Amino acid sequence: MENRISHITLGVRDMAATAEFYEVLGWTRVESEDGIVAFDLIGQTLGLYPLEKLAEDIGLPVEALGRGASTLGYNVRNKDEVAPLLEKVKAAGGRILKPAADVFWGGHHGYFADPEGNISEVAHNPFSPLNTDGAFRWNGY
Amino acid sequence: MENRISHITLGVRDMAATAEFYEVLGWTRVESEDGIVAFDLIGQTLGLYPLEKLAEDIGLPVEALGRGASTLGYNVRNKDEVAPLLEKVKAAGGRILKPAADVFWGGHHGYFADPEGNISEVAHNPFSPLNTDGAFRWNGY
Repeated sequence: MENRISHITLGVRDMAATAEFYEVLGWTRVESEDGIVAFDLIGQTLGLYPLEKLAEDIGLPVEALGRGASTLGYNVRNKDEVAPLLEKVKAAGGRILKPAADVFWGGHHGYFADPEGNISEVAHNPFSPLNTDGAFRWNGY
Repeated sequence: MENRISHITLGVRDMAATAEFYEVLGWTRVESEDGIVAFDLIGQTLGLYPLEKLAEDIGLPVEALGRGASTLGYNVRNKDEVAPLLEKVKAAGGRILKPAADVFWGGHHGYFADPEGNISEVAHNPFSPLNTDGAFRWNGY
Protein backbone atom coordinates (compact mmCIF):
# COMPACT_ATOMS: atom_id res chain seq x y z
CA MET A 1 0.00 0.00 0.00
CA GLU A 2 1.51 3.31 -1.05
CA ASN A 3 1.18 6.47 1.02
CA ARG A 4 -1.79 8.02 -0.71
CA ILE A 5 -5.34 9.20 -0.04
CA SER A 6 -7.21 9.68 -3.31
CA HIS A 7 -10.52 10.94 -1.98
CA ILE A 8 -12.00 12.43 1.10
CA THR A 9 -15.74 11.85 1.13
CA LEU A 10 -18.09 13.74 3.41
CA GLY A 11 -21.49 12.19 3.94
CA VAL A 12 -23.88 15.15 4.09
CA ARG A 13 -27.57 15.78 4.72
CA ASP A 14 -28.03 18.93 2.66
CA MET A 15 -25.97 18.63 -0.52
CA ALA A 16 -26.84 22.01 -2.01
CA ALA A 17 -26.11 24.00 1.13
CA THR A 18 -22.86 22.19 1.82
CA ALA A 19 -21.66 22.56 -1.77
CA GLU A 20 -22.47 26.25 -1.69
CA PHE A 21 -20.52 26.67 1.54
CA TYR A 22 -17.32 25.33 -0.06
CA GLU A 23 -17.90 27.30 -3.25
CA VAL A 24 -18.35 30.53 -1.31
CA LEU A 25 -14.97 29.81 0.27
CA GLY A 26 -13.53 29.84 -3.23
CA TRP A 27 -13.22 26.16 -3.98
CA THR A 28 -13.56 25.17 -7.60
CA ARG A 29 -16.17 22.53 -8.16
CA VAL A 30 -15.62 20.07 -11.00
CA GLU A 31 -18.28 18.71 -13.30
CA SER A 32 -19.76 15.79 -11.51
CA GLU A 33 -22.30 13.11 -12.15
CA ASP A 34 -25.74 13.06 -10.61
CA GLY A 35 -25.74 12.78 -6.89
CA ILE A 36 -22.15 13.69 -6.09
CA VAL A 37 -20.37 17.01 -5.78
CA ALA A 38 -16.61 16.90 -6.30
CA PHE A 39 -13.89 19.43 -5.64
CA ASP A 40 -10.57 18.70 -7.35
CA LEU A 41 -7.77 19.11 -4.82
CA ILE A 42 -5.06 18.44 -7.44
CA GLY A 43 -4.09 14.85 -6.95
CA GLN A 44 -7.07 14.29 -4.69
CA THR A 45 -10.80 14.85 -4.53
CA LEU A 46 -13.06 16.11 -1.79
CA GLY A 47 -16.46 14.61 -2.50
CA LEU A 48 -19.84 15.40 -1.00
CA TYR A 49 -22.24 12.49 -1.05
CA PRO A 50 -25.70 12.14 0.51
CA LEU A 51 -25.37 10.59 3.95
CA GLU A 52 -28.01 7.91 3.31
CA LYS A 53 -26.33 6.86 0.07
CA LEU A 54 -22.91 6.77 1.67
CA ALA A 55 -24.26 4.60 4.48
CA GLU A 56 -25.93 2.31 1.95
CA ASP A 57 -22.76 2.13 -0.11
CA ILE A 58 -20.69 1.14 2.91
CA GLY A 59 -23.35 -1.19 4.25
CA LEU A 60 -23.84 0.46 7.62
CA PRO A 61 -26.86 2.19 9.13
CA VAL A 62 -26.68 6.00 9.03
CA GLU A 63 -26.44 6.08 12.83
CA ALA A 64 -23.22 4.07 12.70
CA LEU A 65 -21.48 6.80 10.72
CA GLY A 66 -21.36 9.25 13.60
CA ARG A 67 -18.23 7.61 14.91
CA GLY A 68 -14.59 8.69 14.78
CA ALA A 69 -12.98 12.06 15.16
CA SER A 70 -11.30 13.40 12.07
CA THR A 71 -10.47 16.87 10.83
CA LEU A 72 -9.41 18.27 7.50
CA GLY A 73 -6.44 20.62 7.52
CA TYR A 74 -5.93 23.60 5.26
CA ASN A 75 -2.55 25.28 5.55
CA VAL A 76 -1.80 28.86 4.53
CA ARG A 77 1.48 30.53 3.63
CA ASN A 78 1.52 33.24 6.31
CA LYS A 79 0.35 33.57 9.87
CA ASP A 80 -1.75 36.62 9.09
CA GLU A 81 -3.87 34.67 6.60
CA VAL A 82 -5.51 32.52 9.28
CA ALA A 83 -7.87 35.05 10.91
CA PRO A 84 -9.21 36.56 7.65
CA LEU A 85 -9.90 33.10 6.31
CA LEU A 86 -11.87 32.20 9.42
CA GLU A 87 -13.85 35.44 8.96
CA LYS A 88 -14.64 34.33 5.44
CA VAL A 89 -15.73 30.94 6.77
CA LYS A 90 -18.08 32.63 9.22
CA ALA A 91 -19.54 34.81 6.49
CA ALA A 92 -20.12 31.69 4.40
CA GLY A 93 -22.20 30.12 7.17
CA GLY A 94 -19.55 28.11 9.00
CA ARG A 95 -19.11 28.02 12.76
CA ILE A 96 -15.82 29.16 14.30
CA LEU A 97 -14.86 26.61 16.96
CA LYS A 98 -11.51 28.16 17.80
CA PRO A 99 -10.48 31.66 16.68
CA ALA A 100 -7.01 32.23 15.24
CA ALA A 101 -4.41 31.77 17.97
CA ASP A 102 -0.80 30.77 18.48
CA VAL A 103 -0.35 27.07 19.20
CA PHE A 104 2.02 25.33 21.60
CA TRP A 105 3.98 23.74 18.74
CA GLY A 106 4.91 27.13 17.29
CA GLY A 107 2.27 27.58 14.62
CA HIS A 108 -0.88 29.65 14.37
CA HIS A 109 -4.29 28.14 13.75
CA GLY A 110 -8.03 27.99 14.26
CA TYR A 111 -10.86 25.50 13.76
CA PHE A 112 -14.20 25.74 12.05
CA ALA A 113 -17.15 23.48 11.35
CA ASP A 114 -18.95 23.49 8.03
CA PRO A 115 -22.76 23.66 8.11
CA GLU A 116 -22.94 19.89 8.60
CA GLY A 117 -20.47 19.81 11.47
CA ASN A 118 -17.41 18.56 9.59
CA ILE A 119 -14.40 20.07 11.32
CA SER A 120 -11.48 21.72 9.54
CA GLU A 121 -8.33 23.32 10.84
CA VAL A 122 -6.80 26.39 9.21
CA ALA A 123 -3.13 26.61 10.06
CA HIS A 124 0.15 28.29 9.37
CA ASN A 125 3.07 25.99 10.07
CA PRO A 126 6.40 27.87 9.98
CA PHE A 127 8.31 24.58 10.11
CA SER A 128 6.56 23.04 7.10
CA PRO A 129 6.21 25.86 4.56
CA LEU A 130 4.05 25.24 1.54
CA ASN A 131 5.82 24.69 -1.75
CA THR A 132 5.42 27.36 -4.40
CA ASP A 133 2.63 25.27 -5.94
CA GLY A 134 0.78 25.14 -2.64
CA ALA A 135 1.63 21.52 -1.92
CA PHE A 136 2.39 20.60 1.64
CA ARG A 137 5.16 18.39 2.94
CA TRP A 138 5.49 17.43 6.54
CA ASN A 139 8.78 18.56 8.11
CA GLY A 140 7.66 18.01 11.66
CA TYR A 141 6.11 20.72 13.77
CA MET B 1 -9.00 29.72 -0.52
CA GLU B 2 -7.13 27.36 -2.81
CA ASN B 3 -8.25 23.79 -3.43
CA ARG B 4 -6.02 22.03 -0.95
CA ILE B 5 -6.19 19.81 2.13
CA SER B 6 -2.82 19.77 3.91
CA HIS B 7 -3.62 17.33 6.68
CA ILE B 8 -6.11 14.70 7.60
CA THR B 9 -6.12 14.20 11.36
CA LEU B 10 -7.71 11.20 13.01
CA GLY B 11 -8.50 11.55 16.69
CA VAL B 12 -7.72 8.12 18.17
CA ARG B 13 -8.00 6.37 21.52
CA ASP B 14 -5.12 3.90 21.15
CA MET B 15 -2.23 5.61 19.35
CA ALA B 16 0.17 2.64 19.34
CA ALA B 17 -2.36 0.16 17.99
CA THR B 18 -3.64 2.53 15.32
CA ALA B 19 -0.16 3.50 14.19
CA GLU B 20 0.80 -0.15 13.95
CA PHE B 21 -2.27 -0.88 11.85
CA TYR B 22 -1.24 1.66 9.21
CA GLU B 23 2.40 0.57 9.34
CA VAL B 24 1.43 -3.06 8.81
CA LEU B 25 -0.43 -1.91 5.71
CA GLY B 26 2.86 -0.58 4.43
CA TRP B 27 2.58 3.10 5.18
CA THR B 28 5.80 4.92 5.90
CA ARG B 29 5.74 6.79 9.16
CA VAL B 30 7.76 9.99 9.40
CA GLU B 31 9.72 11.15 12.39
CA SER B 32 7.27 12.96 14.54
CA GLU B 33 7.27 14.91 17.76
CA ASP B 34 5.92 13.60 21.02
CA GLY B 35 2.28 12.83 20.96
CA ILE B 36 1.59 12.75 17.24
CA VAL B 37 2.13 10.09 14.61
CA ALA B 38 2.42 11.35 11.05
CA PHE B 39 2.36 9.57 7.72
CA ASP B 40 3.67 11.62 4.79
CA LEU B 41 1.22 11.31 1.90
CA ILE B 42 3.41 13.38 -0.43
CA GLY B 43 1.92 16.82 -0.41
CA GLN B 44 -0.26 15.91 2.54
CA THR B 45 -0.09 14.33 5.96
CA LEU B 46 -2.29 11.81 7.70
CA GLY B 47 -1.87 12.44 11.39
CA LEU B 48 -2.94 10.40 14.39
CA TYR B 49 -3.56 12.43 17.49
CA PRO B 50 -4.99 11.40 20.86
CA LEU B 51 -8.74 11.97 20.86
CA GLU B 52 -8.75 13.91 24.14
CA LYS B 53 -5.99 16.20 22.92
CA LEU B 54 -7.70 16.79 19.61
CA ALA B 55 -10.92 17.66 21.39
CA GLU B 56 -9.04 20.00 23.72
CA ASP B 57 -7.25 21.59 20.79
CA ILE B 58 -10.53 22.22 18.97
CA GLY B 59 -12.32 23.29 22.12
CA LEU B 60 -15.10 20.72 22.03
CA PRO B 61 -15.95 17.89 24.41
CA VAL B 62 -14.83 14.47 23.20
CA GLU B 63 -18.47 13.40 22.82
CA ALA B 64 -19.02 16.16 20.28
CA LEU B 65 -16.46 14.68 17.91
CA GLY B 66 -18.55 11.66 17.04
CA ARG B 67 -20.42 13.67 14.48
CA GLY B 68 -20.17 13.72 10.68
CA ALA B 69 -19.67 10.95 8.20
CA SER B 70 -16.43 10.99 6.32
CA THR B 71 -14.32 8.36 4.60
CA LEU B 72 -10.78 8.28 3.28
CA GLY B 73 -10.30 6.91 -0.21
CA TYR B 74 -7.32 4.92 -1.44
CA ASN B 75 -7.30 4.21 -5.17
CA VAL B 76 -5.38 1.40 -6.84
CA ARG B 77 -4.22 0.99 -10.42
CA ASN B 78 -6.06 -2.23 -11.28
CA LYS B 79 -9.34 -3.85 -10.36
CA ASP B 80 -7.66 -7.01 -9.16
CA GLU B 81 -5.71 -5.11 -6.51
CA VAL B 82 -8.80 -4.30 -4.44
CA ALA B 83 -9.58 -7.72 -2.92
CA PRO B 84 -5.96 -8.60 -1.95
CA LEU B 85 -5.57 -5.21 -0.28
CA LEU B 86 -8.72 -5.79 1.76
CA GLU B 87 -7.30 -9.18 2.80
CA LYS B 88 -4.19 -7.42 3.97
CA VAL B 89 -6.33 -4.95 5.91
CA LYS B 90 -8.13 -7.82 7.61
CA ALA B 91 -4.84 -9.49 8.51
CA ALA B 92 -3.67 -6.18 9.98
CA GLY B 93 -6.66 -6.07 12.32
CA GLY B 94 -9.08 -4.00 10.26
CA ARG B 95 -12.75 -4.81 9.76
CA ILE B 96 -14.05 -5.37 6.25
CA LEU B 97 -17.35 -3.51 5.93
CA LYS B 98 -17.90 -4.23 2.26
CA PRO B 99 -15.91 -6.87 0.36
CA ALA B 100 -14.52 -6.06 -3.10
CA ALA B 101 -17.40 -5.69 -5.56
CA ASP B 102 -18.31 -3.93 -8.77
CA VAL B 103 -20.03 -0.58 -8.21
CA PHE B 104 -22.91 0.98 -10.10
CA TRP B 105 -20.70 3.78 -11.47
CA GLY B 106 -18.43 1.31 -13.23
CA GLY B 107 -15.63 0.91 -10.74
CA HIS B 108 -14.67 -1.78 -8.25
CA HIS B 109 -14.35 -1.14 -4.54
CA GLY B 110 -14.70 -2.17 -0.93
CA TYR B 111 -14.76 -0.51 2.49
CA PHE B 112 -12.90 -1.18 5.69
CA ALA B 113 -12.70 0.29 9.18
CA ASP B 114 -9.42 0.71 11.01
CA PRO B 115 -9.28 -0.53 14.63
CA GLU B 116 -10.77 2.78 15.81
CA GLY B 117 -13.67 2.74 13.36
CA ASN B 118 -12.34 5.26 10.83
CA ILE B 119 -13.73 4.21 7.48
CA SER B 120 -11.71 3.97 4.26
CA GLU B 121 -12.66 3.00 0.75
CA VAL B 122 -10.32 1.03 -1.50
CA ALA B 123 -11.25 1.59 -5.13
CA HIS B 124 -10.27 1.12 -8.70
CA ASN B 125 -11.70 3.85 -10.91
CA PRO B 126 -11.24 3.06 -14.61
CA PHE B 127 -12.36 6.57 -15.56
CA SER B 128 -9.82 8.35 -13.36
CA PRO B 129 -6.61 6.34 -13.73
CA LEU B 130 -3.76 7.14 -11.37
CA ASN B 131 -0.84 9.04 -12.82
CA THR B 132 2.45 7.19 -13.09
CA ASP B 133 3.51 8.75 -9.79
CA GLY B 134 0.36 7.46 -8.08
CA ALA B 135 -1.34 10.85 -7.91
CA PHE B 136 -5.05 10.93 -8.49
CA ARG B 137 -7.00 13.40 -10.55
CA TRP B 138 -10.75 13.39 -10.77
CA ASN B 139 -12.08 12.84 -14.29
CA GLY B 140 -15.61 12.06 -13.20
CA TYR B 141 -16.83 8.54 -12.58
